[in-house]
Amino acid sequence: MARSTREAILTAAAELMRVKGYAAVGMKDIVAGSGAPIGSLYHHFPRGKVQIAGEALVNAGRAYALLIPTLVNPHTDLGEAVESVFAQAAQDMAATGFANMCPVGTVAVEIADTVEELRVASAGVMAEWLEAGEAYFASRGVADARDLTATLIATLEGAFVLARTLRDTEPLLAAGRVLGPRYRGIPLLPSPAGVSLPAPVGTAR
Amino acid sequence: MARSTREAILTAAAELMRVKGYAAVGMKDIVAGSGAPIGSLYHHFPRGKVQIAGEALVNAGRAYALLIPTLVNPHTDLGEAVESVFAQAAQDMAATGFANMCPVGTVAVEIADTVEELRVASAGVMAEWLEAGEAYFASRGVADARDLTATLIATLEGAFVLARTLRDTEPLLAAGRVLGPRYRGIPLLPSPAGVSLPAPVGTAR
Repeated sequence: MARSTREAILTAAAELMRVKGYAAVGMKDIVAGSGAPIGSLYHHFPRGKVQIAGEALVNAGRAYALLIPTLVNPHTDLGEAVESVFAQAAQDMAATGFANMCPVGTVAVEIADTVEELRVASAGVMAEWLEAGEAYFASRGVADARDLTATLIATLEGAFVLARTLRDTEPLLAAGRVLGPRYRGIPLLPSPAGVSLPAPVGTAR
Repeated sequence: MARSTREAILTAAAELMRVKGYAAVGMKDIVAGSGAPIGSLYHHFPRGKVQIAGEALVNAGRAYALLIPTLVNPHTDLGEAVESVFAQAAQDMAATGFANMCPVGTVAVEIADTVEELRVASAGVMAEWLEAGEAYFASRGVADARDLTATLIATLEGAFVLARTLRDTEPLLAAGRVLGPRYRGIPLLPSPAGVSLPAPVGTAR
């Protein structure tokens, strides 16, 4: 029971931060969202909101480490793969009414200069994204695996900001049209045996 | 005098949001930052914080509409220009200790699902960025001026998020290395006569 209460608290906190950012979420909101009493929040997280938020960001962020590999995996041409990543992201954004899918980038920019503990937690998540993407692209024979991963993550994060604000998929589709041709004609090696990717994040929501 | 009080309020609000986001900034912070009494804030902005924030975002965002044109202007090769935009951004970020330069993207993601008035204000600013960049690149003979502009803005915004969080310029430099070669060898027409660009934003801080 203790474990599921803990998870309910973290899930509620991630969901609240996804919609409202960090500062606008109070402990009372997490009580309401999780169904756990306030005493239980402090029992599991003695340092309160900052501790809950840090663990919630790490949990939520980890689910996204395999997003790019999962979307790229069916492809054999790197340019087609890159363009399809942005096309899929655009489709998902439009289908959800331009919802924020992941609180990590959102909270990271909000607190980067004010809540060092959360900046460090967010940096850890982003470093894992970079490492996972680099390892995946390297395994498929991409020469600039690290640069490509950093660019894809940066461009997706920024295009999400523009698309959510404009309520328009244009920035995502434009990025796919610009970045796809950069890699068109570069073949991807077959996925290494033993690499098993989880179902796309979207299906587990 | 009334005009300068108004400007002091907007400047203080933009500066506070740049560092702390939207929700964490209170009217008391704007009083302290601007030196204007609380009555003066409500005299100039009867609807309070949301009205101040909306006007401050528009002011701060407008100063950035010419950032990309200004950085691109000295160049005659589009690929070199694109790479230099990211190199300059990386240099500026490192020189400022990874400060947030512009509150628009930061506040936009924080409030996109919760404060519709500010989402609309942010969307207006971003639409102006897209139009200014598109008009500039078109004037220099770039065929995909709109897609290039949307991609540059998205990638810069996202790379800023990663770089500020990681305290590392890698995402900006990686994006330059990926996007530069996409446009290498594409000549830029001379800047049209009569286009006068302001000094780079950095010099006016």
